Amino acid sequence: MRFHTRKWVKPGDLNPNRTLFGGKLLEWIDEECALYSIIQLENPKTVTKFMSEIDFRSSAREGDIVEIGIEVVKFGTASLTLKCEVRNKMTRETIITIDKIVMVSLDENGRSKPHGKTQVEFVKDRLAN
Amino acid sequence: MRFHTRKWVKPGDLNPNRTLFGGKLLEWIDEECALYSIIQLENPKTVTKFMSEIDFRSSAREGDIVEIGIEVVKFGTASLTLKCEVRNKMTRETIITIDKIVMVSLDENGRSKPHGKTQVEFVKDRLAN
Amino acid sequence: MRFHTRKWVKPGDLNPNRTLFGGKLLEWIDEECALYSIIQLENPKTVTKFMSEIDFRSSAREGDIVEIGIEVVKFGTASLTLKCEVRNKMTRETIITIDKIVMVSLDENGRSKPHGKTQVEFVKDRLAN
Amino acid sequence: MRFHTRKWVKPGDLNPNRTLFGGKLLEWIDEECALYSIIQLENPKTVTKFMSEIDFRSSAREGDIVEIGIEVVKFGTASLTLKCEVRNKMTRETIITIDKIVMVSLDENGRSKPHGKTQVEFVKDRLAN
Amino acid sequence: MRFHTRKWVKPGDLNPNRTLFGGKLLEWIDEECALYSIIQLENPKTVTKFMSEIDFRSSAREGDIVEIGIEVVKFGTASLTLKCEVRNKMTRETIITIDKIVMVSLDENGRSKPHGKTQVEFVKDRLAN
Amino acid sequence: MRFHTRKWVKPGDLNPNRTLFGGKLLEWIDEECALYSIIQLENPKTVTKFMSEIDFRSSAREGDIVEIGIEVVKFGTASLTLKCEVRNKMTRETIITIDKIVMVSLDENGRSKPHGKTQVEFVKDRLAN
Repeated sequence: MRFHTRKWVKPGDLNPNRTLFGGKLLEWIDEECALYSIIQLENPKTVTKFMSEIDFRSSAREGDIVEIGIEVVKFGTASLTLKCEVRNKMTRETIITIDKIVMVSLDENGRSKPHGKTQVEFVKDRLAN
Repeated sequence: MRFHTRKWVKPGDLNPNRTLFGGKLLEWIDEECALYSIIQLENPKTVTKFMSEIDFRSSAREGDIVEIGIEVVKFGTASLTLKCEVRNKMTRETIITIDKIVMVSLDENGRSKPHGKTQVEFVKDRLAN
Repeated sequence: MRFHTRKWVKPGDLNPNRTLFGGKLLEWIDEECALYSIIQLENPKTVTKFMSEIDFRSSAREGDIVEIGIEVVKFGTASLTLKCEVRNKMTRETIITIDKIVMVSLDENGRSKPHGKTQVEFVKDRLAN
Repeated sequence: MRFHTRKWVKPGDLNPNRTLFGGKLLEWIDEECALYSIIQLENPKTVTKFMSEIDFRSSAREGDIVEIGIEVVKFGTASLTLKCEVRNKMTRETIITIDKIVMVSLDENGRSKPHGKTQVEFVKDRLAN
Repeated sequence: MRFHTRKWVKPGDLNPNRTLFGGKLLEWIDEECALYSIIQLENPKTVTKFMSEIDFRSSAREGDIVEIGIEVVKFGTASLTLKCEVRNKMTRETIITIDKIVMVSLDENGRSKPHGKTQVEFVKDRLAN
Repeated sequence: MRFHTRKWVKPGDLNPNRTLFGGKLLEWIDEECALYSIIQLENPKTVTKFMSEIDFRSSAREGDIVEIGIEVVKFGTASLTLKCEVRNKMTRETIITIDKIVMVSLDENGRSKPHGKTQVEFVKDRLAN
């Protein structure tokens, strides 16, 4: 799994118990999945369709740095299934894991649209052609 | 199911495709579950522990009003299991459903703590005593 | 008065004195009035025109849950006059009351437009027709 | 009246009708009154206690620049009464006026506390002593 | 130098060390330069092109009030060069200084566009004509 | 240079000209430098002290994905000098470059504190010991 985006847990990200607000974390994950899929499918109109169960294994405190990892599980015809893990950068403790997040590629009218992709591409390779 | 909190989908809540950003919706749901549980369990230290799978059935557009419904599924010893539905207030179209959201009551040290509740209480009744 | 929307006072909602930032509260009220009116008048182009005096009777602290209640005072030709109360969900202490908030229904060009409504409707009833 | 703080109406400040969200405007006003009072009363624990009626005379659109003016109406024993006007910087059109905003100076325990001030001071003068 | 806009350092503006988050401060400065230039050049399509080095001389704490000062350095053909200082309103301690911020006036297609201005104008004078 | 954090340009990140708000970009850069330094210096009390000149070479539009790259320039006694580049993930066009960002490690009292580091470490290696 490759970990890209990192977040610094700031006061505005906390719940009143002074731990990372779970809703904020879900927002970060959803954004990361969206941008990962947009890059892979080369279609900016890619949306979240499904998330499998979410287990909040640990939390984070103010000042912690969390990083969000994404891994491709499967390329469908119009979909891309991802796996996601969020962990604490310093302790490497896992905060949350989601086994299956299904992203769907849409056309102009909001209907699913085949993306023609079958494997992970790195932008470097793509641009090299 | 009782629908309480309502949100107005504003420009800042959209993704670049100009539909409601999924991460924002998850943030709203998490907040609603937290405050529902805090009121029921009478313990402000109540956190989200688990969410079952999430199916994004439809989206919302700028200016739409969404309302968030919560229903109790089960009272555990230290937990409270909720069910959540988000729908469009005008069309009543369902946007998202989550069958099982487990909230846990914690003590000062962050360990699970029995809450002693076994049924939904209305604040009115509680204050009447 | 019916209380719908509930808010959880989070760190980002506080002023530097660590009580609920008054401006945030006014923002919440304005949003609630807007969406209540949009649903009643069935016109998304409904704006706040006037608020009568506001008395900040008490405040709220981090972690408190506040709920916002709305009641219809009067249906005008193009306007809807509301009354609003914000209170603490647990203690039922009143935080703020505003006796008169005038919302106006606008047409495409931003001019006031008769809405044809004379009484509160519940979406359930409306859809039942 | 002296106009200090200026705001640039950005996409995140709009309501779904694409005009300045009234709640945002009230938030800006409340902040401006707070910081004006804190500087004048030399007490950071100064809070909004009352606002007289608010007439939304015009709105603002994305990209507009609004400026917020404050004028002292009266120095009370523990209070400071302000008058506020918000206008469009380029057209000088008035957006909102509030005739009376009462700010109160508090002590450590949240009780009103005499501030000993009787007239507007400029920080320059104060520091010159 | 004229100091206009003032900000109240609220919990949501802090970094985890509980001082003003530097990124927030840069955001405030960029907004202030943009709106100052838009007013002077009478062109809403004015963008930041360059900032000279930034020295963070001191910070601010929660509850502090900072004010942002702008001064014109030079009028170019399509540009406006500003100088900026941010300071603590009560102590007058300087937080940051930026000697040169170049703002550029653009046309509809995003190309630089001569603005025809050669000196600072006050809106009052401009409207008086 | 290693590119980690990626951001999706959402409506709330735009200026009224509908391009990425420069202040938002600076906020993202400052956060990335802070968390990069905290990880390297193993001291959460690390702050931005200086930024060399900033050239805004291009902008980004709604829906674009930008990635932020960081490279170490020099380890000082209590400081860490970084270089930063922000680019468009799909086109690889450079948006901004900052040659020198000086981060400083502080002790409890806010004074600079030697960090004892002389080279980039990867958390994997560090934890392996």
